[in-house]
Amino acid sequence: VSELYLEDLHVGDRFGSDTIAVTSESIIAFARDFDPQQFHLDAKAAEQSIFKGLAASGWHTAAMSMKLFITGELKLAGGSVGLGVDELRWPQPVRPGDVLRLETEILDVRASRSKPDRGIIRIRNVTTNQGGEVVQTFTAFVMVLRRSPPAE
Amino acid sequence: VSELYLEDLHVGDRFGSDTIAVTSESIIAFARDFDPQQFHLDAKAAEQSIFKGLAASGWHTAAMSMKLFITGELKLAGGSVGLGVDELRWPQPVRPGDVLRLETEILDVRASRSKPDRGIIRIRNVTTNQGGEVVQTFTAFVMVLRRSPPAE
Repeated sequence: VSELYLEDLHVGDRFGSDTIAVTSESIIAFARDFDPQQFHLDAKAAEQSIFKGLAASGWHTAAMSMKLFITGELKLAGGSVGLGVDELRWPQPVRPGDVLRLETEILDVRASRSKPDRGIIRIRNVTTNQGGEVVQTFTAFVMVLRRSPPAE
Repeated sequence: VSELYLEDLHVGDRFGSDTIAVTSESIIAFARDFDPQQFHLDAKAAEQSIFKGLAASGWHTAAMSMKLFITGELKLAGGSVGLGVDELRWPQPVRPGDVLRLETEILDVRASRSKPDRGIIRIRNVTTNQGGEVVQTFTAFVMVLRRSPPAE
């Protein structure tokens, strides 16, 4: 897949991803570094928690989804620079053994008014598990370069 | 600090945190795992990028902010279970050498209508660097247990 510019992107375009297999070890390692709570650290303790078993930190799910985005089909020229994220939700917990996949849909494409070399797209990212259950959704604004500045 | 229940929390309450010192190594390690882009991986290549130098992934900043939250002053009984995040923004990049700190403010406190043992708070989390510049903001809904169910 070649690198894409603002001119290449259209509302409704969809992009897929590879997959990530989630393990107990990866859930616990992330939790130790960033979200040290019992239900993310200890399978036994997690059984007594609201999650009824080990579950990934939502921020771990977000980070894994970013990996799927960067290694996925939507390759932006100059890289993916997120300007902001809205409506980040985790409708189902991520468990050891889950295999995650991301789908990205373009919701909006617009040129910058102040900077002629770039624009902004709005995307919706949906992360699902191997059973097709949605484990994370959000929308994001992402900066995208233009292939050619507009004629003046 | 003792663990707090819904009854202990009030709109306008503020909670501080410890600090995290950000290093090139931690920025690069996170990027390798979750956001493998040149401006998060390679200081030299990053100089030519829009960031003009190595910068942390926004999701790394989010993860470090979660660590500051979990180890900070607002200790919730039963743990911190985020239901969703809105308006996540990164107004300034996080750089090697930055020292991050989090402040949490309670925006809303309400009891659940359907589940008498719990409620939901809405919080605003602001992450700043050693110069007081804001590097991340968001609001979140967090589940909180009640100390005692309401009298019927």
